[in-house]
Amino acid sequence: MKNLLLVVLLISIGTGGIAQETVFPEGTKPASTNIPGADYPRIDSLSRVYFRFRAPEATSVSVSLGNVALTKGEDGFWTGIAKPQDPGFHYYSLKINGVEVADPLSETFYGASKVMSGIEIPERGVDFYDVKNVPHGEVRSFWYWSKTFGETRHAYIYTPPGYDRDKKKRYPVLYLQHGMGEDRRAWPNQGRTNFILDNLIAEGKAKPMIVVMEDGGIARGFGTPIRDKSGKILPRPEGQGPGRRGGQGQGPNFWDEFTETIITDIIPAIDEHFRTIPNRENRAIAGLSLGGTQTYQISQANLDKFANIGILSAPFGFPGVETGYNGLLAKPDEFNKQVKVFFISMGSKEGPNTGRTIHETLDKAGIHNVYFEAPGTAHEFQTWRKSLYHFAQLLFQN
Amino acid sequence: MKNLLLVVLLISIGTGGIAQETVFPEGTKPASTNIPGADYPRIDSLSRVYFRFRAPEATSVSVSLGNVALTKGEDGFWTGIAKPQDPGFHYYSLKINGVEVADPLSETFYGASKVMSGIEIPERGVDFYDVKNVPHGEVRSFWYWSKTFGETRHAYIYTPPGYDRDKKKRYPVLYLQHGMGEDRRAWPNQGRTNFILDNLIAEGKAKPMIVVMEDGGIARGFGTPIRDKSGKILPRPEGQGPGRRGGQGQGPNFWDEFTETIITDIIPAIDEHFRTIPNRENRAIAGLSLGGTQTYQISQANLDKFANIGILSAPFGFPGVETGYNGLLAKPDEFNKQVKVFFISMGSKEGPNTGRTIHETLDKAGIHNVYFEAPGTAHEFQTWRKSLYHFAQLLFQN
Repeated sequence: MKNLLLVVLLISIGTGGIAQETVFPEGTKPASTNIPGADYPRIDSLSRVYFRFRAPEATSVSVSLGNVALTKGEDGFWTGIAKPQDPGFHYYSLKINGVEVADPLSETFYGASKVMSGIEIPERGVDFYDVKNVPHGEVRSFWYWSKTFGETRHAYIYTPPGYDRDKKKRYPVLYLQHGMGEDRRAWPNQGRTNFILDNLIAEGKAKPMIVVMEDGGIARGFGTPIRDKSGKILPRPEGQGPGRRGGQGQGPNFWDEFTETIITDIIPAIDEHFRTIPNRENRAIAGLSLGGTQTYQISQANLDKFANIGILSAPFGFPGVETGYNGLLAKPDEFNKQVKVFFISMGSKEGPNTGRTIHETLDKAGIHNVYFEAPGTAHEFQTWRKSLYHFAQLLFQN
Repeated sequence: MKNLLLVVLLISIGTGGIAQETVFPEGTKPASTNIPGADYPRIDSLSRVYFRFRAPEATSVSVSLGNVALTKGEDGFWTGIAKPQDPGFHYYSLKINGVEVADPLSETFYGASKVMSGIEIPERGVDFYDVKNVPHGEVRSFWYWSKTFGETRHAYIYTPPGYDRDKKKRYPVLYLQHGMGEDRRAWPNQGRTNFILDNLIAEGKAKPMIVVMEDGGIARGFGTPIRDKSGKILPRPEGQGPGRRGGQGQGPNFWDEFTETIITDIIPAIDEHFRTIPNRENRAIAGLSLGGTQTYQISQANLDKFANIGILSAPFGFPGVETGYNGLLAKPDEFNKQVKVFFISMGSKEGPNTGRTIHETLDKAGIHNVYFEAPGTAHEFQTWRKSLYHFAQLLFQN
């Protein structure tokens, strides 16, 4: 990058440009997800979103958020207003002459298997994920060797406030999985996991815990393809994931590699490098959407490792009460003794199979479970932030 | 995001799509900066970069890297090859019908005051910034209260391997500043600071140290503008930064806020929360480009805080030997006694004023300094990675 050119350019432009004269629509504020200094997109008190974007040569510009076709002005700026949006974080993209791209004015997030723009719509009266002046934990980039993959892997680790102060204290651990088309960045960035935990811990509502956010291998939906040296995708050997129907919980080898690595590599690395309480009672696993499906798979095969389970908006993968969890779901007393927290959640705008039906099935079978339905939200992060907020308060309470 | 729709979609598409039939140009590999699974951009052994991008409705597509106009095929894909690129990290963008956007196939990085694509060109025989199977430090997101800004601030902190093991050991600290149009993410992401330090420490070439990477307030070049409630930019009160000519080292109040916060807020917070050796001999400050200019400003006003200084590719801000550093540059014996390391660097493709002239001026004035010139690179991260590699080996050696 030619920083020097920019220096010279900006010195000559200074701050005396057009920006100072701009008048913004009344009652609007730049979104908190804008890049530093960007005036658009803006949000008003009804949660409508205002776009303004310069593209004099383009012949069509639209925004996926609210599905708004922007209108071109004589000044080459395209403008438009998206209808009131649900609160929370939304992915969106621009379409410029038919090409879907990220909005250069917003921060980008990895979602839907690509680089997308994100926008944060404030929710009135809701501040449990805000940055407050409370003691803060850290989110650590942690690199460790994975025997399963034969490579150095990267996880995000939340350590609670005070972790570095009391050097003898040990902590329980929550393993928290993202959804399809996302990766390890989703929970810390889109989910605001660390601020949710910081605030809960400050209020004494959640036990201080470590949270491990790793890549579940579902960034492309069905695992990383096998390629030859030129990069050509090879057919998978018979019996090696990803299976085509695994998303419905029917394939035994859907995310075999990740299931293996979490047990063989990740948990031992975390227990070695962090001051954990390394037993099943003090270990939880949860995931959103396809990460919830993974959570079913991992937890039912490894109940000796996890006594706490959270399934957020996962319509696929419920193993059924007859045979699920190695037959334990058919023996509710035994299951209830072994599993301390079984948490099911969804957003009220999602279909009932995404959570409510599973909860009712479990209730009917005598399986203790806690159900949370986020009011008025869909298959998105506001549902999962609120789910985490409730789930975290149930964990490790004795 | 509608993950569920994607699940259904991908289940029906499976892995049996067109991708399996694609033949890639011989000897090319996907760039390591591609998003998971993206086949393009690709790089060949001559460091040429191959682009292939679907945009059937667009009428012009070009790439800033190598300034390549792509050609449209009948299949709606635009293709083109950029001439051999210098090794290392480069920002780039796509231009679609005149609109500059990030490439949806590459990871994005914050640079040039916007969201840009990044591409990593391998350098033959150079692996000092690669991920190796050595003990790894952590990069921590650290939040702390800033009195100067009246807000919670966020820094990236590198802690060396073993930091959590020997809980009595204390470490020296390097404060490392990014360039204009960048922010705290530049050194860990684009610069690969942590891997450079991990590898140096593993070879015993650098002392284990903490590295603090904070936002220098130059993401927009000249600090954050002051706005009224509607978001309108207000003129700055007289005497309050950012000054218009500060970039040339002539304005006294250019980055006053950041200079104040590093002394008043950041150093105390780091010394409180991390096991530092809190004295000037064990504290260094360095910066690239405009961050180097900041480093001049901060270090000459605070020599009681920093005994080690690194100036990477900073053509502006050298205070001059007559009056610089409160007159100390005119008293070389005194300066040489106080400053343990004074490091100047640039890339050989940069103009001599970016470093070499300053080094020669210092030499002539009898000021001890170490000069490094990165061979064959310009004003970009390969220069700064190599500068850090050399600078880090000089630091805290006794």
